[in-house]
Amino acid sequence: MTSPAPATRAYRRLSVEERRTQLLAAALTLFAHRPPEEVSLDDVAEAAGVSRPLVYRYFPGGKQQLYETALRSAADQLEGRFSEPPDGPPTERLSRVLDRYLEFVDEHDAGFSALLRGGSVAETSCTSTIVDEVRRAAAEQILVHIGVADPGPRLRMMVRTWIAAVEAASLIWLDEGKQPAAGELRDWLIDHLLALLAASAATDEETAGALRGLIAQESGTGPVALLVHRLGPVLSDVADPL
Amino acid sequence: MTSPAPATRAYRRLSVEERRTQLLAAALTLFAHRPPEEVSLDDVAEAAGVSRPLVYRYFPGGKQQLYETALRSAADQLEGRFSEPPDGPPTERLSRVLDRYLEFVDEHDAGFSALLRGGSVAETSCTSTIVDEVRRAAAEQILVHIGVADPGPRLRMMVRTWIAAVEAASLIWLDEGKQPAAGELRDWLIDHLLALLAASAATDEETAGALRGLIAQESGTGPVALLVHRLGPVLSDVADPL
Repeated sequence: MTSPAPATRAYRRLSVEERRTQLLAAALTLFAHRPPEEVSLDDVAEAAGVSRPLVYRYFPGGKQQLYETALRSAADQLEGRFSEPPDGPPTERLSRVLDRYLEFVDEHDAGFSALLRGGSVAETSCTSTIVDEVRRAAAEQILVHIGVADPGPRLRMMVRTWIAAVEAASLIWLDEGKQPAAGELRDWLIDHLLALLAASAATDEETAGALRGLIAQESGTGPVALLVHRLGPVLSDVADPL
Repeated sequence: MTSPAPATRAYRRLSVEERRTQLLAAALTLFAHRPPEEVSLDDVAEAAGVSRPLVYRYFPGGKQQLYETALRSAADQLEGRFSEPPDGPPTERLSRVLDRYLEFVDEHDAGFSALLRGGSVAETSCTSTIVDEVRRAAAEQILVHIGVADPGPRLRMMVRTWIAAVEAASLIWLDEGKQPAAGELRDWLIDHLLALLAASAATDEETAGALRGLIAQESGTGPVALLVHRLGPVLSDVADPL
C-alpha cells in the first residue's frame, strides 16, 4: 500500500477550526480579486483543494455566507490598520494610516470596487452594515487624532465627508490602473483633509480650534507648512474683501 | 341612470400615454419618500386610483420595472437642474445649482437615501448605471464652469471626489433631519470645493491655472475673498518652510 499524497494527508489532518480558516482564506483571496458574481462555490472548493459538499458543511448558507464572512474578516483587518499611536505630527500619523489603507485597497482591488460601487446581488443589508461600521471606525480614529472626543455637527460632517471622498478617490484610483503612485495619492488626500479642515475652520469655531491644535504639533517643513507656502502665489490675486 | 363619479370618468378618458404618465407620477411620489422595500404595487395602484392588474398591464416587469422607470425619470429631472448659463461669478452659478440640487434631495429624501446607501434588493446594475450617469453629468457641468474641456487625471479626480463628498454630505444632512439649513450646507459645500481646488492647485499646474481663471471672475466680496480673509487668522500660526 502506498502512503497517501501530501494534499490528502493535509486534508485529513486539519481540525474543524483549521479547515474553516483555510476555506475562509481561499474565499478571501478569490473575493479580493473578483466581483462576487464571478466567484462560485466550486472556485472556493478548488482553491482550497476540497470538495464542494465540504464547503457547504462549513458554510451551509453557501456563497452568500462565505462572502459575508470573508467581508467581516476583511473589515476587521482594515479597521486594525486604522490604529496609530497619537504621537508626533498628525499629518505623519495620517500618512502612515493612509499608506496602510491604500495597501489594503491595492490588495483587494476588484472586491473593493465591486463592494463599494453597489448594484451587486451579493450586496445586502448585512454587507452595508459592515461597510458602515468600517466608516464609523475610520471617523472615530480621525477624531482621536484631531483631538475632539465629542464633535459638533459641522466637524462630524466634515470628517465623514472626507472619508467618502477617500473612498471615491480609491475607486477612481483602481479604475485608472492604480495611477498616480499610491504615495502621490496619499499626499493629495492629506492636502485635501487639511484644505477641508481650513474651509470648515473659516466658519466653525470648534474646527478652527482643532486646526490650531493640529498646526501646533506640525513641523515647519511638514505638509501644512508646504501647502500654505504653495498656496501663496495661487491666492495672491484674491482681493481682501474688507 | 346616474352619471359616473368623476374619478371613474377620469379613469376612462385617459389615453395610454396619459395613463402611463399618471402611474409613473404615483410611483415617483411613493419611491421619493419611502425605501423601495416599503412600496408595493398595491400602493402604486391605490395612489393612482386604479387596479393592480392595470398597473401590470403598463409595467409587466412589476415593481422593479416601475422603480427603474421612476428612477430614470428622477435622474433626468436632476440632470436638468445642473444646467446653468456660464455667466457671472462661478461661485454664484454653483450656488444656484447647489440650491436646486438640495431642493431635489429634500423632495426625494427617503428614496434618495435608500438608493445611495446601497444594500437594497431594488438596487441592480441598471440602477447603478443610472446613478453613475448622473454623477458623470454633474462632473461634466462642473468642468464646463471651471473652463477645462479635457481635464488631466488630477483635476478629473478632484471633481469626481467632490461630487462624492456632496453625496455623502447630502445623506448625512438627511440623517440629521435636514440640519443645518440648506443654505448653510450649500455655502459649506462651495467652500469645500474652493479649498479642494486650492489644495490641488498647490501641486497641479492645470488646476492652478483653472483656479486663477475662476478667481479672476469672482467679486471682491464673494465666497473666495471671504474664505481667504477668514483663513488669515487660522493660518497665521503656520511657519514659512523656506
